[in-house]
This record gives sequence, C-alpha cells and structure tokens, in this order.
Amino acid sequence: MNHTPAQSRTVWVAQAGQCSSTSDNISAEIPVALVYNGISHVVLMATPANITELALGFSLSEGIIENAEQIYAIDVSEHQHGIMVEIELASAAFSRLKSRRRQMSGRTGCGLCGIDSLAAVQPELKPVLRTEHINFSIIGQVLTDFNQCQQLRAQTGSVHGVVWADMFGRIVTVREDIGRHNALDKLIGWGLRTKVDWKQGFVVLSSRASFEMVMKSAITGIGCIVAVSAPTTYAIDLAHKANITLVGFARCNRQVIYTHPQYFHP
Amino acid sequence: MNHTPAQSRTVWVAQAGQCSSTSDNISAEIPVALVYNGISHVVLMATPANITELALGFSLSEGIIENAEQIYAIDVSEHQHGIMVEIELASAAFSRLKSRRRQMSGRTGCGLCGIDSLAAVQPELKPVLRTEHINFSIIGQVLTDFNQCQQLRAQTGSVHGVVWADMFGRIVTVREDIGRHNALDKLIGWGLRTKVDWKQGFVVLSSRASFEMVMKSAITGIGCIVAVSAPTTYAIDLAHKANITLVGFARCNRQVIYTHPQYFHP
Repeated sequence: MNHTPAQSRTVWVAQAGQCSSTSDNISAEIPVALVYNGISHVVLMATPANITELALGFSLSEGIIENAEQIYAIDVSEHQHGIMVEIELASAAFSRLKSRRRQMSGRTGCGLCGIDSLAAVQPELKPVLRTEHINFSIIGQVLTDFNQCQQLRAQTGSVHGVVWADMFGRIVTVREDIGRHNALDKLIGWGLRTKVDWKQGFVVLSSRASFEMVMKSAITGIGCIVAVSAPTTYAIDLAHKANITLVGFARCNRQVIYTHPQYFHP
Repeated sequence: MNHTPAQSRTVWVAQAGQCSSTSDNISAEIPVALVYNGISHVVLMATPANITELALGFSLSEGIIENAEQIYAIDVSEHQHGIMVEIELASAAFSRLKSRRRQMSGRTGCGLCGIDSLAAVQPELKPVLRTEHINFSIIGQVLTDFNQCQQLRAQTGSVHGVVWADMFGRIVTVREDIGRHNALDKLIGWGLRTKVDWKQGFVVLSSRASFEMVMKSAITGIGCIVAVSAPTTYAIDLAHKANITLVGFARCNRQVIYTHPQYFHP
C-alpha cells in the first residue's frame, strides 16, 4: 500500500480525428474511514494527503469536538482498501457523539421522522464574533496568487483548493482535495494544529459555496468566505445568520458580495 | 412554501474600485428527505425540481430497488424546512433495506470495523453488458449542444447538468441540480419512468467523474460516461471493472478516453 495524491495512468487522447495513447497524472480518490474510540463513524472519499488534518478538521467542523484538546491521539494506517484513521476522543466528546448516533438511529422509526430529519438539517448556530474589517483591495491579489499555489491541480487538472489568507492578503497555506468539503476540513485541521486566529484572515475556495461549506466555516469561527464559483440560496441564508461575509464568482478584477458587506472597507 | 430552482436576491458587485448593489438569480438548495415505508433514510441537499425522478433514480442507483416496479407510490410534500418524499416500497426491497441498515449499525461496534467499512466501499459489481459501438465523431456535436441546453445554469451560472444522448448524438433529455450526484439520479429516474434502453446511448456530465458517479452508472447499466472535467483513479478503476467507457476533459474538439476505447468506432 502506498497511497499517493496523483498517479500516472495510460490514456487515449482523441483530437482532430486521431486517437493516440499517452500517460497522464490522475487525482487519487481513496476511502478514508474515521474511527472514534473504536467506533467507525464515517467513510470519506478523499485525496490521500494531510489525513491527520482532515480528521482533526472534520471532527471540529462536524461538531464532534469543540477544541483540539478533546482529541488525545490520531493514528493513521494504510490498508488494502484505503486509509483508517483511529481517533482517541476525550470522554465528554465521545459521550456526545454516542448520544447523537443513538438519536439519529432512534429518529428513524416514527411517522414524523421525515419532517424531523428536515428540521435536523437546520443548524443552531452562534453568529461568528468579528472585530476586524478586511481591506477589499487585497482580494484581487489573493485570487491571483491562489491560481499559482494549487500544486496538485497543476499536476492533475482537477482538484479543489482552499487557502487561508491573512489580513495583508498573503496566502498562509493551501490545502487540496478531490472533495471540496475535505479540502476545507484539511485547512481547518491545519488551523487547529497551528493555533491560527480565525479572526485575522479569510478562506478562499476554488469551488462553489454550498450550505455545508458555510456551516463548517461558521462552526470553526471563520468570518469571511471568498468562493471562485457561486453560492446557493441556503448558503447565503446561513452566512447571513452566522455573521459571515460571503463573496462569490470571485475574479481578480470582479467579485460578487452576498452577505455582510459592512465588514469590508474599500 | 414554494420551493423554486432559482431565486432572486440582492447582491453587491465590486469592480474597478466601485461597489454597487443589483439583483441576481441564485440556485436554490433545499433539504430533501427520502422516507421509505415510513422510515427516514437520508436527507439530500438538492435543487427543488424533478423530485420524483430524484427519488426514483436514487433508489435504483443506491441499490435500494432493482427495478421501477418495486416502488408502488411516491408522494412529494413541501414543508417549512424542505421537501419530504414518501416512497412506498415492495416488501422484498424494504426487507433488504432494513437488513442493510441493521448491518450498517451493527458494523459500528467492533474493533475491526474501520477496516470493514473500508472494504464495504468496494462494490460487488456485474460488468455492464454492451452490444453497441458508439461513433466517436458524434461526441463533439453532443458537447456543443450540451452547453446550450442547461437552462438553470444559464440563469444562475452554477449548477451541474447531466444529459442522455442517443447513438445518433441527439440530446434526448437534460437534468440539472446543485449536486452532481442528484443530477445523475434525476436522469436515471427519468430513464426508469420512460423505460429508456440504456444500451442505446450515453451520459454526458458537466462535472468530474468520481467513484460514485461511475458506481451509479454501473448499477443502472449505463455503458459510457463522457465528463467535461477529470475522473479520479478510483473512478477509472471502477469503470474498467464495470466495462464502462469513461471519457474525461471532454471538449468539442478534444477528449481523453480512460477506459474501454474499443467500444468506439472512429
């Protein structure tokens, strides 16, 4: 087992009526099982890189832990069918996870459960506390730099990228994954590990901003999301409630602001 | 409640140092709960259109039913927090679903479960039986037409599209959704409803081809997938095993073939 983020494969290129074989770099997609205190919780399909950060970020952004101290150990092992991540949780977090899992399975037995499960998607969120304003003029520069720092995308032409940029418009770090949720979770995991102050910067996403991307940011305490593609209505509504500034269709020379433009100064 | 696929919102456009407010069409994203014989199975985040087809296609492509006759009724109702779809399943399919759900929850209690859940992702698949060859020269025309038939994307700039094209390169139908899995499921649901012969055509995806997109196609019996963006390694491996021709980075004048090129004739 040696799981690498990009793998070379033989492909056939069809062009101008001709078809010729060549080799190409393809993004790897691997099952990653997250196991909390011996209980398998979820299998994610992910790019095999930064797996410890993925586990850490997922645990926070999905509400399994409230802070990095609630994880005592993370053990990553490679297997034939994928990667297993064994996470040792503090007992308070583990009790909450077990009770949530019981609730989830309990909820599936009654007539009202369809409506209950719809309501369960509606999150109870605390608005992100924000003190800083962002200088709008730095956004264009960050987007220019963003295009140049996605290494795996340059190799394979396809993965999602997420960066953390500081208030001076400098890209601090980048994470990539075939899944946009995973890329964001990896960045959040990096932030937990390095104790980033989420008030002092913003995230840039190569993808769309859907409900779950805003939800994960809100739980983490990220106050500003800049997405290269579109947001959805649900993402906008959630960003509005969560006091998050949401920017979409972000290009170097043009951006669309969907919520809380008051946190920018020109 | 009136869930529509696109909604108008006020946004602010920043360009050349100026910021002005305007209105824009945004893709709606709505929780859709699928409830089988009174048991809530899953909540999907989806575009509120073609919901009956979504339920039908998901049921087949996720292995809950084997054919459309195993569904007796589908009832769609709109609620404050989303859409509920109540599906009446034949008893054989419902017993299998319940036993799969028991297995899933049973699987989460032992030490080995992480490795078990990784193996569970590995599907047991029958290769798609194929008799027809596709004339490669029609692919370019289909891709040109594809760009012109995605109405919701034209309105909102963001959703995924999936079309079914016949062996003459004519687009038979298109389905759109904020989620690429949903868009494919809606197309599969359409095909079940109209009794499409999956041997007589191919699907075109506006998105990447990941493992799950190939898996859903294989279960349905679709033999050829043309994706506008990249496939992953896992998708290629699965397409190879499933006897599916997988094409990626598909443009009008250039395409990359990843598996089973022998089903094309030039």
